[in-house]
Amino acid sequence: VTVAALVAITAPAIDAVVDAHAALRAKRPLVQALTNTVSSNFVANVLLSAGASPAMVDNPEEAALFAGIADGVLINLGTPTAAQVEAMRLAAAAAQKGGKPWVLDPIAAGGLPWRGQVAAELLKFKPAAVRGNASEIIGLAGLGGGARGVDSSASPEAAVPAAVDLLAHARAVSASGPVDHVVGHIDGRTVLVKIGGGSALLPRVTATGCALGALVAAYMAVAPDSLTGLVSAHVHFSVAAELAEAVASRPGSFAAAFIDALDAVDENSLRSRAKIQPAVLIE
Amino acid sequence: VTVAALVAITAPAIDAVVDAHAALRAKRPLVQALTNTVSSNFVANVLLSAGASPAMVDNPEEAALFAGIADGVLINLGTPTAAQVEAMRLAAAAAQKGGKPWVLDPIAAGGLPWRGQVAAELLKFKPAAVRGNASEIIGLAGLGGGARGVDSSASPEAAVPAAVDLLAHARAVSASGPVDHVVGHIDGRTVLVKIGGGSALLPRVTATGCALGALVAAYMAVAPDSLTGLVSAHVHFSVAAELAEAVASRPGSFAAAFIDALDAVDENSLRSRAKIQPAVLIE
Amino acid sequence: VTVAALVAITAPAIDAVVDAHAALRAKRPLVQALTNTVSSNFVANVLLSAGASPAMVDNPEEAALFAGIADGVLINLGTPTAAQVEAMRLAAAAAQKGGKPWVLDPIAAGGLPWRGQVAAELLKFKPAAVRGNASEIIGLAGLGGGARGVDSSASPEAAVPAAVDLLAHARAVSASGPVDHVVGHIDGRTVLVKIGGGSALLPRVTATGCALGALVAAYMAVAPDSLTGLVSAHVHFSVAAELAEAVASRPGSFAAAFIDALDAVDENSLRSRAKIQPAVLIE
Repeated sequence: VTVAALVAITAPAIDAVVDAHAALRAKRPLVQALTNTVSSNFVANVLLSAGASPAMVDNPEEAALFAGIADGVLINLGTPTAAQVEAMRLAAAAAQKGGKPWVLDPIAAGGLPWRGQVAAELLKFKPAAVRGNASEIIGLAGLGGGARGVDSSASPEAAVPAAVDLLAHARAVSASGPVDHVVGHIDGRTVLVKIGGGSALLPRVTATGCALGALVAAYMAVAPDSLTGLVSAHVHFSVAAELAEAVASRPGSFAAAFIDALDAVDENSLRSRAKIQPAVLIE
Repeated sequence: VTVAALVAITAPAIDAVVDAHAALRAKRPLVQALTNTVSSNFVANVLLSAGASPAMVDNPEEAALFAGIADGVLINLGTPTAAQVEAMRLAAAAAQKGGKPWVLDPIAAGGLPWRGQVAAELLKFKPAAVRGNASEIIGLAGLGGGARGVDSSASPEAAVPAAVDLLAHARAVSASGPVDHVVGHIDGRTVLVKIGGGSALLPRVTATGCALGALVAAYMAVAPDSLTGLVSAHVHFSVAAELAEAVASRPGSFAAAFIDALDAVDENSLRSRAKIQPAVLIE
Repeated sequence: VTVAALVAITAPAIDAVVDAHAALRAKRPLVQALTNTVSSNFVANVLLSAGASPAMVDNPEEAALFAGIADGVLINLGTPTAAQVEAMRLAAAAAQKGGKPWVLDPIAAGGLPWRGQVAAELLKFKPAAVRGNASEIIGLAGLGGGARGVDSSASPEAAVPAAVDLLAHARAVSASGPVDHVVGHIDGRTVLVKIGGGSALLPRVTATGCALGALVAAYMAVAPDSLTGLVSAHVHFSVAAELAEAVASRPGSFAAAFIDALDAVDENSLRSRAKIQPAVLIE
């Protein structure tokens, strides 16, 4: 590894995140979300507050057409129906064809064979990013034929090998948790970026992971590369969670405060609160 | 125009709105909402807080039967599925046949051909009101064969000609925005009523437009005429938004404060805060 | 009735509720919720805050498999689709076969024949509990061939005979209202337990009844018997509503405060606020 490479891999650091955040606010990307019924309202409000524009067009009749209109697409496997799955295939194919970034959130794909098959098919349409909790990342990677199974108590650190495996399909992959683990490429090298912060209240509110996936799709539409977009979404989310935790101590009030905080996040709070560890090379 | 007519067209003024609000609270109309997945929870809470009773019966097996039980029906095209669209046709037909007022919220109907066709068919069942943002009203009117297209940056004022065109199908039509523009009939004359107020935070919360459509359906069930019902719903909504903005400055806390405020709105707040401009004749 | 029996039927009293609550917090049961679109987000947040883990797997492809994974299952008939109904049948059958407790929330089953037929079929799979408002309990019992119809203004007290009838299908049954009425068995005897408290704001927030049904499913997974589980869920819910009402006076802020309060409920608040009347024998 050369000195230049070592310097290079300290990116995406805070400057890149601040730039991506400014681009999000300036461009207000339109995100098409094909997501689960539990999350749809919260996902839309998270996108609106963070600075994007949501549209939940998820039927087979319109999904492909709308993927051509949207700036980014989220596909979340939380509560798939047969019709929604058909829409997901059409939207992912249209996004790939149209050069639009799309994000896969493979909820429970490793543990439930029917949706696991759906997830495996969707990977062929080359998502810009995959975001899940550690178990989901491990489970999704296992669908590719690897030996890894599902472990619901997995830590994000334990999911890194699976995340790297998924880089065969996606340009960047993250495993959420107390410390988010993000993998992607810088100058052709595979790197790992860890992001701390956040709040223990996040997993006490339903659909926060889903909403992060949607925010990833928004950042993918404005960031210069997939790794920067994925890291920026995680940082925006984590800083907002910290701001919310400062004013709310239980899940109901935290949920409202978190929506407020996604709106309140600005360059100052990003610079003062972001906990991005320097990128490290992965062989 | 005679003096009597000039006096007449100053209605529906605040007295009529206050009466409609009192009727809403007294009768608690049952509103059947066939709406999108993003909005269903928020729509139900808005109806409950404002003083109505919600029921989301939206499958083809029960939609027509329930339209005969409900006092008003909302049909919102936000996230239509094939089955829900069939239910919408059945509910609209049953509402028309049973003399129940129903409201069309034509989300994105002008921009997406599949739902545009659905919206055009639904207009045949003669809604009591159509409510949309300016682009949606222009888009819906354009489906009728007119030359108007979709312009996502349209102002409510620009939507007035389209709204008037839609009076061929609906008894009253509104285009929401910073100043809501409502058209309908008084004594056989076509008039325009503008309603100010509201809050810049309303469009920062998802499904507020959908919820306004549902509130229109509730008011249609208790108001003496469609224009009064439509204006009253807009005024109740705008006054509540002002009250909420006084205690909340960001979207998450605003959403909860807005639900509180819909409940808090009373004759005093309506009289002191309503911003209804005198009706003007349209040729 | 012997003295021993009289002592026995004073249970399930507060000690049993406190134990069930401790078990809920210790075990965090996984609840599969097949519920309506209005309620899904709120149900998930209520389960998370109260101390359970939600999963909304409600498609026919996965529902039965997941019922074998979950600790308890909620089936709520609020907005059934044909596909969801098929999933409900499969989940209920799998739950019965696997010895997993499942709960039926028969929304409007007595008033709408299509879902009424669904509810009647589901009863064959022997729910651990049925929870509804008084009209729903009366309506559901009437589906069995009895003479009782639907009365939307029924009081929980009026629903007791219907609830007892339903004990032919379910191990415990509750009718919610200002005073919840719960029937079940202690030592082979049929008893009635009344639970006061709660808040008049509960019915002003949509899906609170649905959320109570989900909490019942969670308690069924950890309580020693169905009556104790059903009573414990009602008590946890009522105490939380009281705590929320102490800090919020309108529906929007109450909803968030209620989620907070479900989390805050502990042994102290249960012992100081629970309003459980001694069980009475029913012939």
